[in-house]
Amino acid sequence: MTETVVSSATREVKIGFDRPFAVIGERINPTGRKRLAEEMAAGDYRRVEADALAQVQAGAQLLDVNAGVPLADEPRILRECVKLIQSLTDVPLSIDSSIVAALEAGLAAYEGKALVNSVTGEEERLESVLPLVARHGAAVVAISNDETGISEDPDVRFEVARRIVERAEDHGIPRRDVVVDPLIMPIGAIGAAGRTSFRLIRRLREELRVNTTCGASNISFGLPARPALNAAFLAMAMASGLTSAITNPLEAEIMSALGAADVMMGHDRNCRTWIARHSGSGGGAVAEARARRRQGRRRGG
Amino acid sequence: MTETVVSSATREVKIGFDRPFAVIGERINPTGRKRLAEEMAAGDYRRVEADALAQVQAGAQLLDVNAGVPLADEPRILRECVKLIQSLTDVPLSIDSSIVAALEAGLAAYEGKALVNSVTGEEERLESVLPLVARHGAAVVAISNDETGISEDPDVRFEVARRIVERAEDHGIPRRDVVVDPLIMPIGAIGAAGRTSFRLIRRLREELRVNTTCGASNISFGLPARPALNAAFLAMAMASGLTSAITNPLEAEIMSALGAADVMMGHDRNCRTWIARHSGSGGGAVAEARARRRQGRRRGG
Repeated sequence: MTETVVSSATREVKIGFDRPFAVIGERINPTGRKRLAEEMAAGDYRRVEADALAQVQAGAQLLDVNAGVPLADEPRILRECVKLIQSLTDVPLSIDSSIVAALEAGLAAYEGKALVNSVTGEEERLESVLPLVARHGAAVVAISNDETGISEDPDVRFEVARRIVERAEDHGIPRRDVVVDPLIMPIGAIGAAGRTSFRLIRRLREELRVNTTCGASNISFGLPARPALNAAFLAMAMASGLTSAITNPLEAEIMSALGAADVMMGHDRNCRTWIARHSGSGGGAVAEARARRRQGRRRGG
Repeated sequence: MTETVVSSATREVKIGFDRPFAVIGERINPTGRKRLAEEMAAGDYRRVEADALAQVQAGAQLLDVNAGVPLADEPRILRECVKLIQSLTDVPLSIDSSIVAALEAGLAAYEGKALVNSVTGEEERLESVLPLVARHGAAVVAISNDETGISEDPDVRFEVARRIVERAEDHGIPRRDVVVDPLIMPIGAIGAAGRTSFRLIRRLREELRVNTTCGASNISFGLPARPALNAAFLAMAMASGLTSAITNPLEAEIMSALGAADVMMGHDRNCRTWIARHSGSGGGAVAEARARRRQGRRRGG
């Protein structure tokens, strides 16, 4: 029953084994988005604003915020984006950078309990990121690679994750606040990438008892019809125990699969969210019986 | 590495742990199809023909054939349908009836090694269906209920399945020729139906080491947007070990999810089937690199 609680000033979100799947919106990230990168470097955050609102509207429970523009003042941009986004929406943020000073600036500006994205099993990262996470009482994404790189053996990656979790505990960060990213590899290059991920996610849940997240779209890199692949991957990863993902909530195919998989996991109580979302699309007997009951109650009252 | 081999006169299909998922087309079944029932009773099989061809065209590896028209001569209809369909297509058939005389008539007419659908754990069914399956050297679908009904406890259903497998072995039917149906319950009524199914499918694979199949669309009974629910369920069941399903291959959403899930399981070698199916839809780098290599080879040769 592991639960990772993150929050903004006014809203708590729980990532957990018995919770609906948590979607962390991936869009606020200049990597591969040339125009966004230029605008961010110039201090123009209109696209950041629009992306934040659209992702929340589409159902993101958290937003990832990355300001990794090469040669720009990343700490300043990240701090400004955090402040701006928190003024627009109350969903908690994942503060995402490979630069410790940027994480620090983002955390200093953040109101609530953030998710820090990320720490790896590399000694230098462990010793620079974990004290920062501990000091701010944040939660942290732990990526299961280390100085030796990313192992193709899921059991090696499991051991890296275990080491990060233990090291976090040494720093006073409870295991429930470490969300492990098993590192999804492109299946177009590595045919076992799916099975490896599912096995690792299952071990992380059953043995290490931690929440998990991933950059789901990596799985389909280089292949056609990527949303359909990402959607199937996420449903299968959820069956294996995945509790959150950094993905694009604007992809209808992905959000539909996540909603359906929540139903399958028994995490959409009485299928209420599913029925509400599809109530315009031709009913179904359970939906209609519910609608009739509601009508009956209204007439009765 | 369990493999169930079924065949027609000229074609073998293998259902197995390391094989692409086997789709058993569900359409040739008069249950809930009033016009088809009337036509079948009158000996008009044009719709049966069309359904057979359309399902094979859509990617079904087997076809289920059910002739359960109330008050009609089911053995005769099933025999005639089996002969007709085998004259049209070489995909193996699943001969589906709750009437033993109909199964017998269908098997007598069948060329190849059929799948018999089904036996349950009820004593009377075990003793009437298993000898028939053994005599014809067929494979059989084993449904995990017995005289006490369908348990909501997956571990009870597992024990029913184990008993059927053991009884089949007593009759000389090897365990690889028993394909267990874990019985999918509607999740609109039973919120745990998804998790229960996944747990049972996993135990059937890991402990009993049998192939599995199911009537997947039961899961979404009474709910709106059923194909999306069925698609997510099937992908998640595949991650749990499901190796085949009786479903509708004409539903594009389901077939897309099954294709994607085959990729994820590493059962679509080099993603060839996926890439071929989506080659018109905007490429992707892996697809384009392959196309370039093919072109290079053609130019070279």
